[in-house]
Amino acid sequence: MIRLDLTGTEKYCSLTDEELRAAAAAHRSLLEGTGVESDKTGWLTLADRILTGECRDILAAAEKIKSDSKVLVVLGIGGSYLGARAAIEMLQPEGDVEILFAGNGLSPTYIRNVIRTLGDRDFSVNVISKSGTTMETSLGFRVFKDLLEKKYGEAEAAKRIYATTDAVKGALKGLSDRKGYTTFVVPDDVGGRFSVLSAVGLLPMAVAGIDIVNVLTVAARTMKELNECTEGNPAEIYAAVRQNLYRSGKAIEILACFEPCFRFMGEWWKQLYGESEGKDGKGLFPAYVEYTADLHSMGQMIQDGERNIVETAILFDTDRQQISVPDEASNADGFGGLVGRTFGDVCRVVADAVREAHVDGGVPNVRLNVEACDEAGFAQIVTFFELSCAISGYLEGVNPFNQPGVEVYKANMIRRLGTKK
Amino acid sequence: MIRLDLTGTEKYCSLTDEELRAAAAAHRSLLEGTGVESDKTGWLTLADRILTGECRDILAAAEKIKSDSKVLVVLGIGGSYLGARAAIEMLQPEGDVEILFAGNGLSPTYIRNVIRTLGDRDFSVNVISKSGTTMETSLGFRVFKDLLEKKYGEAEAAKRIYATTDAVKGALKGLSDRKGYTTFVVPDDVGGRFSVLSAVGLLPMAVAGIDIVNVLTVAARTMKELNECTEGNPAEIYAAVRQNLYRSGKAIEILACFEPCFRFMGEWWKQLYGESEGKDGKGLFPAYVEYTADLHSMGQMIQDGERNIVETAILFDTDRQQISVPDEASNADGFGGLVGRTFGDVCRVVADAVREAHVDGGVPNVRLNVEACDEAGFAQIVTFFELSCAISGYLEGVNPFNQPGVEVYKANMIRRLGTKK
Repeated sequence: MIRLDLTGTEKYCSLTDEELRAAAAAHRSLLEGTGVESDKTGWLTLADRILTGECRDILAAAEKIKSDSKVLVVLGIGGSYLGARAAIEMLQPEGDVEILFAGNGLSPTYIRNVIRTLGDRDFSVNVISKSGTTMETSLGFRVFKDLLEKKYGEAEAAKRIYATTDAVKGALKGLSDRKGYTTFVVPDDVGGRFSVLSAVGLLPMAVAGIDIVNVLTVAARTMKELNECTEGNPAEIYAAVRQNLYRSGKAIEILACFEPCFRFMGEWWKQLYGESEGKDGKGLFPAYVEYTADLHSMGQMIQDGERNIVETAILFDTDRQQISVPDEASNADGFGGLVGRTFGDVCRVVADAVREAHVDGGVPNVRLNVEACDEAGFAQIVTFFELSCAISGYLEGVNPFNQPGVEVYKANMIRRLGTKK
Repeated sequence: MIRLDLTGTEKYCSLTDEELRAAAAAHRSLLEGTGVESDKTGWLTLADRILTGECRDILAAAEKIKSDSKVLVVLGIGGSYLGARAAIEMLQPEGDVEILFAGNGLSPTYIRNVIRTLGDRDFSVNVISKSGTTMETSLGFRVFKDLLEKKYGEAEAAKRIYATTDAVKGALKGLSDRKGYTTFVVPDDVGGRFSVLSAVGLLPMAVAGIDIVNVLTVAARTMKELNECTEGNPAEIYAAVRQNLYRSGKAIEILACFEPCFRFMGEWWKQLYGESEGKDGKGLFPAYVEYTADLHSMGQMIQDGERNIVETAILFDTDRQQISVPDEASNADGFGGLVGRTFGDVCRVVADAVREAHVDGGVPNVRLNVEACDEAGFAQIVTFFELSCAISGYLEGVNPFNQPGVEVYKANMIRRLGTKK
């Protein structure tokens, strides 16, 4: 279980009983389905449902892809993209199939690079779109479907296309049924940013070599524990602390992690919180920083700039790999005292030094301690952040499950491009 | 030359003559050396000085590295890291030497991954630190120096170590002189975040296959043009607009680009502006967004969240590579109308749609038009942002060339680690 350490917020935020009760009430309304847009809370039970449902088919598809492909091109954007990429970058599984992401933008240079990286290797395609009319993904699918059909012919290509889409309706579902693509479901009761533990995230993860049964099992257990925890519930408290600090005038929350492989988890987190809370003229702006690198770039501003920042730091108790500081005869750098100590050990000392500096400088610091940067840690982090995000959105007084603002530029775009949707 | 398009700020910001005069005065004080910490403005003439000075030695070292190495491990952090990485990712040169970055953090998993990627290939090391006592870089150097010496012996290893450091003093300079490492200079009058066009950035760039003479030539010409422009100077105007919007209550500036290869230019820009302006309790918080991907993650908040955001978008007039939307018989996705149009063309229409949506939604939009995502474009962007940043810092009333806040956590760290510096 994730351990919440509020040492670094004590100076800035002391939650009242009322605030704690409000967070518990928001949590309860989620579980009881009495909150806003309660038909979008399917992620509360998603891991369990997938384990007893679609999981077997996902694993079978992953096995087929591993048997006939060296590359899986995953086409999706936003919630149909970030979760899988975040998981694979964080966990760095040593599978034999390379996962390439496309359909997540319009840069021709990027698409050409993906095609070049793909080379003449055998590949399959996983196109992910609930509607089948998301522009970037649709145009990307046109490109890679074309490549597949030229390489394998239409019939064989259809056996190499996996569509993760609506269960019954929509453009991509219709096309898939006509062409005989294998399909997986984007559930109706789970929004894109909450969908990483559905087939949306799980199929690419499984193909990459991640043990998705392990991930789902830990996620289901973590969700159960968090939902049953009535005393000092970390998901409720994190939500309450964030909203307290937001009301006190903070404008930005930076998520910090000391592992470079966590960068796209940061992107996933930014979407989860930004898209859930950033509406009705409200919301903490989410940003990600990679430590210690960004202490040497954004560190000055965090320490000493506008005092409108909250910091949430993720620390792992253990390291996936070890390395010790080597001896160096001259000791010119002055770090001879660290010889033999592990980098991970040094890093955790630095994390405490950073917290001390930032708290002294006016930046409240929430720490989330996670046992390991592994599949269980991934499942715990996802579950904790999803639950806490929904509670936090309810506390903020917004609908954490919609995204009306995303439609504005799309309407302009359709008008300007002269396309019909 | 970069073209500034302020169509998207008209609704929010109309600069007074006084504001324009203040920006011109700040610019003049930079050029005349009458502003704060004017001994740190060497970047104003850096490209010229390198072209007639160290450039030849940098090119010679790059040729030697290309002749005896398949990998260059670059050790540096902050300003000794981001510029080179940003340039190489943006320009994607097709050189034969792979550049790996380390010494920019403390994650043992990351270091092990670099060592694994390096494999048994021939390599050289470029260690970059003005003092030679930056912890992350020093510890990283210990690891890779150790690997070099075990692989090649101490004498040959010394011929494969290139130190970019102080010209005369410091731990790394002393060690280099004793061991016979080739050295390059981190100039005294150029801070780290302004140093990409010194040997700090140029040696890795040259090894990667970037034509640094071209970059420097365009940078020198751009700097001259910007410094001689007395009417509608884009660097002055960008600075004035940012500060106007900051004073009007904006808290965050997002830099947006539609090219995924621009991500680390975003990181470089964040350091440049964040570290220069984020002090004395002041400063716009810089964040980077990758479009169109992040329109599907951060787009909701940008469109409809807290109204404290300014957007600066970089658009390229042309594309490095081309690809057209393929035909698809079913036209299920509804995008048949785009068949045959290039992705780059579609992307530029989307950029206009996004600007329209964001401006309507309360987000002022500054657009920077750059001819191409190439060496000249890189040089223009670097020069424009550096000059404008310094002007902007002067307008904000801070010293844009120091970073006192970075020292706070370092002092805590040294105390907690029990190391002496």
